[in-house]
Amino acid sequence: MRRFFIFIVLFATLTTMAQEKKPFTLHDLIPGGETYRQCTPLNAWYTWWGDQCVELDVDTLSLLKPGSRKPAVVLMELSQVNKWLEADGKKPVHSLQSVSFPYADKPLALFQANGEYLLLDWQKGSVVWSLPVAKGAANMDWHKQSRHMAYTLENNLWVMTSDGKGVQVTDEPEGIKCGQAVHRNEFGIEKGTFWSNDGQRLAFYRMDETMVSDYPQVDMEARTAQYLPDKYPMAGTPSHKVTVGVYDVATGNTLYLQAGDPTDRYFSNIAWSPCGQYIYMMEHPREQNRAELVRYNALTGAKDAVLIAEEHEKYVEPQHPITFLPWDDTKFVYQSQMDGFNHLYLYNIEGQQLAQLTRGEWLVQQLVGFHEGRKEVIVVTTEVSPLQSNLYAVSVQSGKRRALGNSEGVHSVELSASANWMLDRYSAPQTPRRIELVSVKDGKVKNTLLDAPNPWEAFDVPEITVGTLKAADGQTDLYYRLVKPVGFDPAKKYPAVIYVYGGPHAQMIQNSWNCAVRGWDIYMAQKGYVVLTVDNRGSGNRGLAFENCTFRQLGVEEMKDQLQGVEFLKSLPYVDAGRLGVHGWSFGGFMTANLMLTYPDVFKVGVAGGPVTDWKYYEVMYGERYMDTPQTNPEGYKNSSLLEKAGNLKGRLLVIHGGNDPVCVPQMTYSFLKACIDKGTHPDLFIYPGHGHNMSGIDRVHLHEHITRYFEDFLSSEF
Amino acid sequence: MRRFFIFIVLFATLTTMAQEKKPFTLHDLIPGGETYRQCTPLNAWYTWWGDQCVELDVDTLSLLKPGSRKPAVVLMELSQVNKWLEADGKKPVHSLQSVSFPYADKPLALFQANGEYLLLDWQKGSVVWSLPVAKGAANMDWHKQSRHMAYTLENNLWVMTSDGKGVQVTDEPEGIKCGQAVHRNEFGIEKGTFWSNDGQRLAFYRMDETMVSDYPQVDMEARTAQYLPDKYPMAGTPSHKVTVGVYDVATGNTLYLQAGDPTDRYFSNIAWSPCGQYIYMMEHPREQNRAELVRYNALTGAKDAVLIAEEHEKYVEPQHPITFLPWDDTKFVYQSQMDGFNHLYLYNIEGQQLAQLTRGEWLVQQLVGFHEGRKEVIVVTTEVSPLQSNLYAVSVQSGKRRALGNSEGVHSVELSASANWMLDRYSAPQTPRRIELVSVKDGKVKNTLLDAPNPWEAFDVPEITVGTLKAADGQTDLYYRLVKPVGFDPAKKYPAVIYVYGGPHAQMIQNSWNCAVRGWDIYMAQKGYVVLTVDNRGSGNRGLAFENCTFRQLGVEEMKDQLQGVEFLKSLPYVDAGRLGVHGWSFGGFMTANLMLTYPDVFKVGVAGGPVTDWKYYEVMYGERYMDTPQTNPEGYKNSSLLEKAGNLKGRLLVIHGGNDPVCVPQMTYSFLKACIDKGTHPDLFIYPGHGHNMSGIDRVHLHEHITRYFEDFLSSEF
Repeated sequence: MRRFFIFIVLFATLTTMAQEKKPFTLHDLIPGGETYRQCTPLNAWYTWWGDQCVELDVDTLSLLKPGSRKPAVVLMELSQVNKWLEADGKKPVHSLQSVSFPYADKPLALFQANGEYLLLDWQKGSVVWSLPVAKGAANMDWHKQSRHMAYTLENNLWVMTSDGKGVQVTDEPEGIKCGQAVHRNEFGIEKGTFWSNDGQRLAFYRMDETMVSDYPQVDMEARTAQYLPDKYPMAGTPSHKVTVGVYDVATGNTLYLQAGDPTDRYFSNIAWSPCGQYIYMMEHPREQNRAELVRYNALTGAKDAVLIAEEHEKYVEPQHPITFLPWDDTKFVYQSQMDGFNHLYLYNIEGQQLAQLTRGEWLVQQLVGFHEGRKEVIVVTTEVSPLQSNLYAVSVQSGKRRALGNSEGVHSVELSASANWMLDRYSAPQTPRRIELVSVKDGKVKNTLLDAPNPWEAFDVPEITVGTLKAADGQTDLYYRLVKPVGFDPAKKYPAVIYVYGGPHAQMIQNSWNCAVRGWDIYMAQKGYVVLTVDNRGSGNRGLAFENCTFRQLGVEEMKDQLQGVEFLKSLPYVDAGRLGVHGWSFGGFMTANLMLTYPDVFKVGVAGGPVTDWKYYEVMYGERYMDTPQTNPEGYKNSSLLEKAGNLKGRLLVIHGGNDPVCVPQMTYSFLKACIDKGTHPDLFIYPGHGHNMSGIDRVHLHEHITRYFEDFLSSEF
Repeated sequence: MRRFFIFIVLFATLTTMAQEKKPFTLHDLIPGGETYRQCTPLNAWYTWWGDQCVELDVDTLSLLKPGSRKPAVVLMELSQVNKWLEADGKKPVHSLQSVSFPYADKPLALFQANGEYLLLDWQKGSVVWSLPVAKGAANMDWHKQSRHMAYTLENNLWVMTSDGKGVQVTDEPEGIKCGQAVHRNEFGIEKGTFWSNDGQRLAFYRMDETMVSDYPQVDMEARTAQYLPDKYPMAGTPSHKVTVGVYDVATGNTLYLQAGDPTDRYFSNIAWSPCGQYIYMMEHPREQNRAELVRYNALTGAKDAVLIAEEHEKYVEPQHPITFLPWDDTKFVYQSQMDGFNHLYLYNIEGQQLAQLTRGEWLVQQLVGFHEGRKEVIVVTTEVSPLQSNLYAVSVQSGKRRALGNSEGVHSVELSASANWMLDRYSAPQTPRRIELVSVKDGKVKNTLLDAPNPWEAFDVPEITVGTLKAADGQTDLYYRLVKPVGFDPAKKYPAVIYVYGGPHAQMIQNSWNCAVRGWDIYMAQKGYVVLTVDNRGSGNRGLAFENCTFRQLGVEEMKDQLQGVEFLKSLPYVDAGRLGVHGWSFGGFMTANLMLTYPDVFKVGVAGGPVTDWKYYEVMYGERYMDTPQTNPEGYKNSSLLEKAGNLKGRLLVIHGGNDPVCVPQMTYSFLKACIDKGTHPDLFIYPGHGHNMSGIDRVHLHEHITRYFEDFLSSEF
């Protein structure tokens, strides 16, 4: 049986203190706000030079030996650095906070500034190497061993060799992109170039989009509005064709892996063999019900072997390239959900499974690295709780696990060169941010580098509760987060708003600071609303069966679970069941509008942002993974289409969309409006011109003012 | 001194009758509604064959001699017609209502049906001539003498000769349009082909738009949204270049009038000399402060003479081609506002002004035709009242005027072949529609063909009052129309809404049926609102000085006058001055948003439809006529820009736009939204996907539901 880790966080607002606390403005709570009170950022301001920790200040870099009680020692100062740069004819830098240390054993600091990459030897006090960044370059991928840099100029791939010579690798016409991420962000693909370990060969994606429809985005800020075509393959329409090239820096030759006709196929999770002779990648048919790990000869492009094949009647979705053991080039770690949860498996290069390294009703979220001496793999998992990310060392020989660092909260980790030490960054419900130096040997915290202050100290924070309730299947426990109104009075009746996301690969409730509450939830609590969020079946971090029960019918099971949240709200004596609202964005916008239209008597007011309104307008990779195609699943598409339900609208529904949303394209919202007009129903609308899938910067405050006003207009009183 | 014709219309709702009257639905009141109660249409269902009036029924055509007391005589019946058509191998027709009689002296009826034009001889009982309409043809222009037809296929001009042979006249690439109206609907240009009197030569416009920006319209109903570029020259940006060609049917040759470099020039009001040897047209520089009447030799293209030149420091705007006297090819009538009102002038072909035919503080709206025997020109003028259109015969020799037909209401007229008779169609405040046969000889009504029933007979119609109030200049009388709430109680306090247009060339208040009240005004009166409309200075039918006081500062004087309307409302004891709203579309949308932003403490709620928000986004012809260019009038553009005032919004402002508005492009509204977001103000928004500058069909009902709901949400109670 699954153990659930349940707890309640109470931020007791002491009566005697109440007068001293002040209310939040939206600017305090929303990223982009002028007074946004953010936690110290996750990546602040430490890194590794070998096994020594470097403290990165604007003016000073200091060194700290892990476990040492001595204070950090100054390594270099900004004024000094700028003198060294000046002596070499370089422009000054203004901060040392983004310096990195690529070589564990060399006193070289890497600066990326003023249009170049340069290495500063702080012992010599001089620039020892530099490389200009080509004008207009994007997708820079620098290899620290060879010091070559891959980059793109418009749609083509270039390499700047370590001696500063720019070489054009591809010469493709418009419509074919080389060296960029492919397959629209799915499959864990975040880049388009992959250096071999020695940095002498470069694998890269080549994506032919000439057969893909252009979505006509429009720039409304030009003197006369300007057409901005954006390749966007919608579900069931022609998809792009991807091939993988290999460029050899020494010879200047490029070859392509002989993977056959790329029509309706995806290629993901590229990995080099340590020796640089082979490339491994995952291959999927467009149906995504099968994935093969295939090996190619990188020197000839020939297909060498299919090592692993996985199938699933719903979908398989490998997200991680294989990782070779640092101490044995014949073995690699393969991640798979084949037993229902993402776990690690040890394989040899013959494709034989040697061991399942992790197992249990929890999942591995990240393979961080290895401790070569101890033959351990360092991972982040949900073993403590599905709401947490905790650190473990797993023995590759025995599979035994050791917990590393603190057990509470959501952790991320950066290993030192030897992997004897790690920087453990985390937050927990009452911990805004801690950064600790942890010994991998005994798992203990040796130094506390940062214990961030509570940025909400001066404010009147409402009560936040996390708990579980039963899913609509009557069995599964779902996590909820409940925020009570500020100045809560149990005798009163409050309106309530559900904030929902509900889509795959995401989780709204975590054991991070304040249980990952959103700033807007706090604002609404301050305005006198109860705010509830439930992570329904279909959401992330709970394993395959939990997530894929939504297959071919997105929205159906998810909404049933949200209705369990409604029942929970109705069970609370202080909630006015006649005044329920719902709000969400993207998949949550889909959920919001869907809930308004499917349960028109439950919700009075909804605000759906950047919604999917019909999955046929969503792109092939994500859309077809979860829904198949409109051609093969017409019923599923029809049943999940909000266009079909547009006539059901009874309450007030505000739809908001970014004017240039490239993810959920504006056609989603305009089609829905048309359907409502045809049916005689009256949603409300707002558009943020020039914005994409989310509003960022100061406009995010305007957005939340707008959302809040809508609930205040139509939900605050008995409208 | 100008005489004003003021009166009040009272639709007394008798208490004893009230119970029998029913309320309107929006479907009853809005064009496109399922139960729309429209008046009998203006063009119903009479026409001329020579001097005999033909009554056009679906099944029967009947002949009536004007002045005769005898009933109409059946001319032909549908079943008979279809037998004749069938005998000639033609498809049957389903109605006779659109048959016309091009030849006064021949028994030939013209049918345009089933993809062809055909002439039926009803005495012979057979089809005597037919011409196929080319597939995809548009802009058909058939000449009854020669029976040739001009038409366009895509961007090129064709002629189908009377024997059915299609000839391609122009062969231009995309971006150059031939045979279509040019200069974006200004200058009274409604078509692009002009036959000589004998129908053997064809003058046509050629418009090169390759240098004009594309406005990126988007079709949201395609499978994947589709780019629909639309040439749209915005104020201050490169305009198209127009030339005029002349095609000779006999030789097949085309020449172009030698008008010089067409850059930044407009060519309008094309007219042929009766002999067919000359073409007259008006030529304007882009500044529109000068207009020349120029004669060209149609056989050589050579410029022959500049006959008349007019200048004005603001603008000149000739809207009517010259018209030759039927009895003297050496003289023509020229229309001009040169004395401050549009009047008729007699010129000879040497360009000498022989006489001013009409004169007075009223204007000629239309030159209908001539009575050759009496040497009279028949015109429609505002002499009775600026709110009316009445018929007059003006002696070309003496300038003496005779009134024709009834003196009340708004008239339009169709002369018989000899001009001895006319069909006079009109409506008046209490007359839904009358059609009368009038003798031009004595101006008397001889037959009443139609006295349409009141389509609102069964409904509870509110009280509608028309009167005058002083403009902000303290001198000018402005007309207003006031609609009181249904079931008016003088002891109550009602919210009030101003419906505004306010732009040039238009008039909201007329002495037509119910004083031209809009259906929505009635609906709002039914909901308990007072509805006021004021035709401010700058609007049409009041002469040049009244209209052009807005030059280079659109909105400023117009709003001052609307504020006089507000003062009038405040003077009414039954109006709640704290609950004022405003609504308008297009120029009226500009006015609405402008009023909300300029007088934020006056109006609580506004609904601005298809608004201009900055004149720099409007097109060159209209925009620069009234505002000059952004380069030459930066202050005027800035002061009239709603983007500059976006931060002033205090009340509730709903902006509505057609998703594909080609007139006020959607960039107008999106730019305004961005300005509001930047300034932290919160307008509301709705978009009608796929609609143009106005919502038509059943969606127009949805639109008015949406507008009404907004006022009900935020103005109906003390919000």
